[in-house]
Amino acid sequence: MMESESVRMTAPADDVFQRDCAGRDILDHVTSRWATLILASLVAGPHRFSELNAKIGGISEKMLSQNLRTLVRDGLVKRTVTPTVPPQVSYSHTPLGADLTVQLWGLVSWIGNHTNDILEAQVRHDAATIQP
Amino acid sequence: MMESESVRMTAPADDVFQRDCAGRDILDHVTSRWATLILASLVAGPHRFSELNAKIGGISEKMLSQNLRTLVRDGLVKRTVTPTVPPQVSYSHTPLGADLTVQLWGLVSWIGNHTNDILEAQVRHDAATIQP
Repeated sequence: MMESESVRMTAPADDVFQRDCAGRDILDHVTSRWATLILASLVAGPHRFSELNAKIGGISEKMLSQNLRTLVRDGLVKRTVTPTVPPQVSYSHTPLGADLTVQLWGLVSWIGNHTNDILEAQVRHDAATIQP
Repeated sequence: MMESESVRMTAPADDVFQRDCAGRDILDHVTSRWATLILASLVAGPHRFSELNAKIGGISEKMLSQNLRTLVRDGLVKRTVTPTVPPQVSYSHTPLGADLTVQLWGLVSWIGNHTNDILEAQVRHDAATIQP
């Protein structure tokens, strides 16, 4: 096999290619649209549920609630209850979640910068003869 | 809003938080389990269909074929036909795909290194009192 010209990286740990690698489920899950946007929102600091709901266009309360529960269970988001009247609940990154978000950020920024490249590639592809 | 202690990043371009941002579809799509594993496989150089099929445990021929078609359409993977008898088809990164893979790589490596942290957090969470 020829070595790729354009990317110089060590081959990944073999286990990510194995059918039963637990990391695959975590990958699916942290890169889901809503989990990514929640983690990205929290870069700006702690948010209340209603603030997240307002910030992330198109998310339903049900999906926001489900995703927050999952992120809290994963140890990526911390849920803090302040005993005011009424109690205030806020969500913030755990150190693990902040660390993951740095990685996600690189990816989200790349996509932000290259969305047009990909849309243009799709147009070029569709305009060309369909490959068998 | 308090500033996060642990992550210092510029806030993302606002449009990723908008309901109709095209980048959201691309994010869903390039971070899908199979697209990620295909792009990661190609770090080692061009692969034939059968080589990718053997390398990525659990992928069906149908899913591999569908994902390759999508990645080619996105301009992330190049399909090369060598006119031997029989013709040989191989898949490799485009420069755009190689660039994206650098970003994906950071994420995949992070998950590889932190899968146990997340699994442990889940166990701790489930052992604790269920939060309302």
